[in-house]
Amino acid sequence: MKLATIGTAAKDKALLAMADAFEANADFIKDANRKDLAAAEANGITGAMLKRLTLDDKKIAQMADGVRQIAMLRDPIGETIAGYVRPNGMEIRKVRVPIGVIGIIYESRPNVTADAAALCLKAGNAVILRGGSEAINSNLAIAKVIQEAITAVGVPEGAVEIIETTDREAARELMTMKQYIDCLIPRGGKGLVRTVVENSEIPVIWHLDGNCHVYVDAAADLGMAEEITFNAKVQNPSVCNAAESLLVSEHIASGFLPTMCKRLADAGVELRGCAKTRAIVPGIKEATEEDWATEYLDLILAVKVVSGLDEAIDHINKYGSKHTDTIVTEDYSAARRFTDEVDSACVFVNVSTRFSDGYEFGMGAEMGISTQKLHARGPMGVEEITTYKFVVTGSGQLRG
Amino acid sequence: MKLATIGTAAKDKALLAMADAFEANADFIKDANRKDLAAAEANGITGAMLKRLTLDDKKIAQMADGVRQIAMLRDPIGETIAGYVRPNGMEIRKVRVPIGVIGIIYESRPNVTADAAALCLKAGNAVILRGGSEAINSNLAIAKVIQEAITAVGVPEGAVEIIETTDREAARELMTMKQYIDCLIPRGGKGLVRTVVENSEIPVIWHLDGNCHVYVDAAADLGMAEEITFNAKVQNPSVCNAAESLLVSEHIASGFLPTMCKRLADAGVELRGCAKTRAIVPGIKEATEEDWATEYLDLILAVKVVSGLDEAIDHINKYGSKHTDTIVTEDYSAARRFTDEVDSACVFVNVSTRFSDGYEFGMGAEMGISTQKLHARGPMGVEEITTYKFVVTGSGQLRG
Repeated sequence: MKLATIGTAAKDKALLAMADAFEANADFIKDANRKDLAAAEANGITGAMLKRLTLDDKKIAQMADGVRQIAMLRDPIGETIAGYVRPNGMEIRKVRVPIGVIGIIYESRPNVTADAAALCLKAGNAVILRGGSEAINSNLAIAKVIQEAITAVGVPEGAVEIIETTDREAARELMTMKQYIDCLIPRGGKGLVRTVVENSEIPVIWHLDGNCHVYVDAAADLGMAEEITFNAKVQNPSVCNAAESLLVSEHIASGFLPTMCKRLADAGVELRGCAKTRAIVPGIKEATEEDWATEYLDLILAVKVVSGLDEAIDHINKYGSKHTDTIVTEDYSAARRFTDEVDSACVFVNVSTRFSDGYEFGMGAEMGISTQKLHARGPMGVEEITTYKFVVTGSGQLRG
Repeated sequence: MKLATIGTAAKDKALLAMADAFEANADFIKDANRKDLAAAEANGITGAMLKRLTLDDKKIAQMADGVRQIAMLRDPIGETIAGYVRPNGMEIRKVRVPIGVIGIIYESRPNVTADAAALCLKAGNAVILRGGSEAINSNLAIAKVIQEAITAVGVPEGAVEIIETTDREAARELMTMKQYIDCLIPRGGKGLVRTVVENSEIPVIWHLDGNCHVYVDAAADLGMAEEITFNAKVQNPSVCNAAESLLVSEHIASGFLPTMCKRLADAGVELRGCAKTRAIVPGIKEATEEDWATEYLDLILAVKVVSGLDEAIDHINKYGSKHTDTIVTEDYSAARRFTDEVDSACVFVNVSTRFSDGYEFGMGAEMGISTQKLHARGPMGVEEITTYKFVVTGSGQLRG
């Protein structure tokens, strides 16, 4: 438990040392990354996946900057979340403390290694990293740089550990180590997350589908609605906070959909519409029941004309994944009802769903985005990987 | 989701109606309770267990008062936990909301039915109650009174549900209903809790052992230490927040232990000591390694002389159950180190461990006491059965 009590200055010093070390050891990290890239190319991996795996000087500088931002955040540890005095004179304080040991099982992007290590260190948690085989050389190199940098400035050994093998047995074993690990965070594809949720004996914070919606209300600024819809679908379609369904109020559908659909189609988006949509914009493929519940992670968008706010909210609560949903409206009451009644981690008004992200929320980075309701919901930064204890001080109080 | 948004006034009105209905239907509840008591006596149940099962007018009045206290608490729903504006003008608020549907699986005391229903209603959660067979008639009667009282004042049907059978298959099925239940809380014996933790596909907030410690520091007020130790062990030895181990600094052991041990022995407490304890107080039984890790729930106390604060903290973190531990000291730095370094849900200074309780903490009642670290830790009141959502409002922000 020494790590939990080393103090803010020591933690921030270690974070800055970590950031400097990434830049000083950029060649070492790039050499390791080249091995992963060669293996990926030999396995026929190309395009976006290869790009996400690649670490160049710019990405390493971004990794370092992210860690420096985390160093500058307020230390959440020790915060008094609530405090009061009982009639018998006992003083009760609910104080924020580290969780302890966090295991993170992740895939693909090697910068997660840096983000997870930095967030856990800031929160006073030890972390056990278990990255995917596709980035194993990069992950081991980054972890080695981190370990050397932080122990050199006094962080206890073991604060950042990495599992050196990528075989599945090692991951399964991790899921049983409940006496050593307080929390597991799976971050990656749905297959990975389901495996961890179903097999872990340790409490899990999961991130499943991101089936995000844009609802264009009768009172929307239609220009803004078009920009938000386009941004939410097209700017980066392969991520969890991209929009997968567009709901449009029937009051403005015939004025909105033709231009919107043309712009999306011109950008290569395949549209799948309900009967009313297809009546307004002929030639669109028919959407099935399954489409409403699908996270495409691709240039595909399901489009539905709804009678109004009630149907939009019901549709989102029925088919959505409780991740991020946005309304475009200038109607005050509609905005209030949408944010009150849509049961999702992130409910937005007049903002693109793409902002549902730890960095965009000002957290420096994120451990992932929770779509469950216990402990943390939505983007998880430093505060979301802490817990609390009750500190009670008195003067000899006895229970009668 | 209608329950989540019915508002504070409607919820508090329903709670007051519930409290009145307990008193108005006391005879109906006592008639049902008599069936459980007759069955218990036929099964040879006596003493404390029978007493915990009994509902008389006084206990029913206490149940009603507890619910009235919950009605008077501030509504946690809608609280802005954090709020800030991002450089791009997006306003981010972290807002407290209900979890949704909570399942509680509990044993023995039928008043848990009232506490759980009231706390869940206050937090805007629906609750599914699954009590033990020993109290099934009482639980069904209390649930019926609650359902009639709250629906009569407009709470939606289904807000409080009770499972009418007590067979184990029904409980197992509850643990698989992850599409309907957001969180399961087991409350009762260790066997019950382990079964739920091991079998549930739904996130669980668990309460395992309560192996609580009293540490009497070298700088303790020895009179206060004696009173706190006696209260923590003897006042109600069958509950989770009773002390199971006494740690005593070697600097004051020979002055403290003889009187303390005599008083405990006179009250019928069986003492099990380390070698140093037995050298100071001859005739005490020898404590084994197992004793340090045991929750006796009985008039038994393990006693160990430690070299000082460091050994006490190490011992508690090694053998304790992260529930509640108290130090008795007048030394400012010792108190600070104890509360910082003992990794338990509740860390006390100069207060009996017996205060680790939702009612004593001012929560009106409790859903249980969590000994895990995710979501809630220690006594769980209304706030601990809520979650949050991120409400983000903007003016057309797009991600670049």
